[in-house]
Amino acid sequence: MSVAEPLQNLSSATCAGPRMTQAGQPLTREVEVLDEYGQRRSIHIPDERPLTVFVDKRELVTLMTLGAAPELLVLGYLRNQRLIDDLSQVESITVDWDVHAAAVRTVGGIEAFEAKTARRVVTTGCGQGTVFGDLQAQVDAIRLPPPDKAGIRQSTLHGMLEVMRQQDSIHRKAGSVHGCALFRGTELLVFVEDVGRHNALDTIAGWMWMHGVDGADKTFYTTGRLTSEMVMKAAQMGVPIVVSRNGVTQMGHALASRLGMTLFGRAANRHFLCYTGFERFDSEPEPQRSPVRVVAG
Amino acid sequence: MSVAEPLQNLSSATCAGPRMTQAGQPLTREVEVLDEYGQRRSIHIPDERPLTVFVDKRELVTLMTLGAAPELLVLGYLRNQRLIDDLSQVESITVDWDVHAAAVRTVGGIEAFEAKTARRVVTTGCGQGTVFGDLQAQVDAIRLPPPDKAGIRQSTLHGMLEVMRQQDSIHRKAGSVHGCALFRGTELLVFVEDVGRHNALDTIAGWMWMHGVDGADKTFYTTGRLTSEMVMKAAQMGVPIVVSRNGVTQMGHALASRLGMTLFGRAANRHFLCYTGFERFDSEPEPQRSPVRVVAG
Repeated sequence: MSVAEPLQNLSSATCAGPRMTQAGQPLTREVEVLDEYGQRRSIHIPDERPLTVFVDKRELVTLMTLGAAPELLVLGYLRNQRLIDDLSQVESITVDWDVHAAAVRTVGGIEAFEAKTARRVVTTGCGQGTVFGDLQAQVDAIRLPPPDKAGIRQSTLHGMLEVMRQQDSIHRKAGSVHGCALFRGTELLVFVEDVGRHNALDTIAGWMWMHGVDGADKTFYTTGRLTSEMVMKAAQMGVPIVVSRNGVTQMGHALASRLGMTLFGRAANRHFLCYTGFERFDSEPEPQRSPVRVVAG
Repeated sequence: MSVAEPLQNLSSATCAGPRMTQAGQPLTREVEVLDEYGQRRSIHIPDERPLTVFVDKRELVTLMTLGAAPELLVLGYLRNQRLIDDLSQVESITVDWDVHAAAVRTVGGIEAFEAKTARRVVTTGCGQGTVFGDLQAQVDAIRLPPPDKAGIRQSTLHGMLEVMRQQDSIHRKAGSVHGCALFRGTELLVFVEDVGRHNALDTIAGWMWMHGVDGADKTFYTTGRLTSEMVMKAAQMGVPIVVSRNGVTQMGHALASRLGMTLFGRAANRHFLCYTGFERFDSEPEPQRSPVRVVAG
């Protein structure tokens, strides 16, 4: 995890939130490989590990994570799975890598825990059991700022992509991870990488809660695909604009259209496609692709 | 899904297997986008849909899939989740897109269904609840052919990569999908794309069962990362060699080492890295990176 300030400071900055360990782990490991010339050499690979989450001593789920900020991951996971509605419901999150466990203590327990965790949906490519049964209710509950209050200009989008291009990353060093970032304008607030794009996004959700950060004037960036669950999670965090280096799937597209969100995909360097929510986007028309050439004579 | 013969023929070729519908779906859909020049244009995006699997009328899971070969996906899912051990346990698989449901009928039910489906693991990037509790037992049960019986030469690997390079694909047309393929030498037996790499791999597992195909002399190709679950699934299907265009994670690496599997990653064009199981790989040394130059005089 990379943030403007070190994560430790950010974690401890808010006194109102739950007590948390700070059990961040080394994110890569060196291994020896054989290349196409038959030569041995060393490379770095992402070092993911299982983390079993217990809520009030009941086993909930095992997440595979790099472990950059496991407490924020767990917090964001509980938030994005809608198991908790408010930060005040969590008393403490204790991560112990000796037993690969995160113990969550809530204030007064989670209502209807069994019912909320009963259904299982294997989601696109990267599944964290999103409860799809109440999709309509979820969609109805989401309020995003209108386009005239939360838009994005092409120059801002370019600025963000340039920040991401220059960002040092595990992906560059070791590959095989996804990154998610939260921007205010072209200012990078937080950048998280993990083996799954959901973990990275959940960690950002946890970070936002811990720091009382609202999503309305923010933009999400992700290296992963814009599937319906990614779109839904961003919307639930109140973020109306999402940018991906990757593409979109039909359900992600349909959900974003329904929610009035703006999605950009294939976004890298100075290229991108705006998939939905054109009305939030000020394209500040760039020079024409085929400029009119005035031929003398 | 793309196979040497059309899937329909392959599905019906085996009479011994379960009865199945053939409810393959269109895999992409056209949408209008706005590009960086402010121009509207049409592109194709992958058209995934939810498919809820019922086993003997009990709801098991909802998979997000492109729906290329949903019956084989469901069969392979049941196999790879170790809910069934043998094809003869399945009587029929009926997919009905009107209700987004796959109804599986077993012969005599699934033993210990509740216990087998109780634990939930959100796996790396692409989760299908792999039951990690009995990992040691799973590993012990796997028998892969020894290196002298199942190896791969560099020329074969190059041949496979060339076949994949020339393969027509949803990925090329619409992006945002993962592909998996099964090879015998440089012969492509089956190629499946889906929104998640697990779905693609599970569909191949279903196809292998339906056609009585053994994994020992085969090689898997995937565009996705080599995580522990991908490695485990390949091993359970008896395939000792796995090739990825992408990288490896630490747990995938560790598991493959333990199982004596050979993993190749970053494999595209004529480049690759061999991560584990060097002993299966005949690198047929390529010309040296820096050939010795004989300077006259």
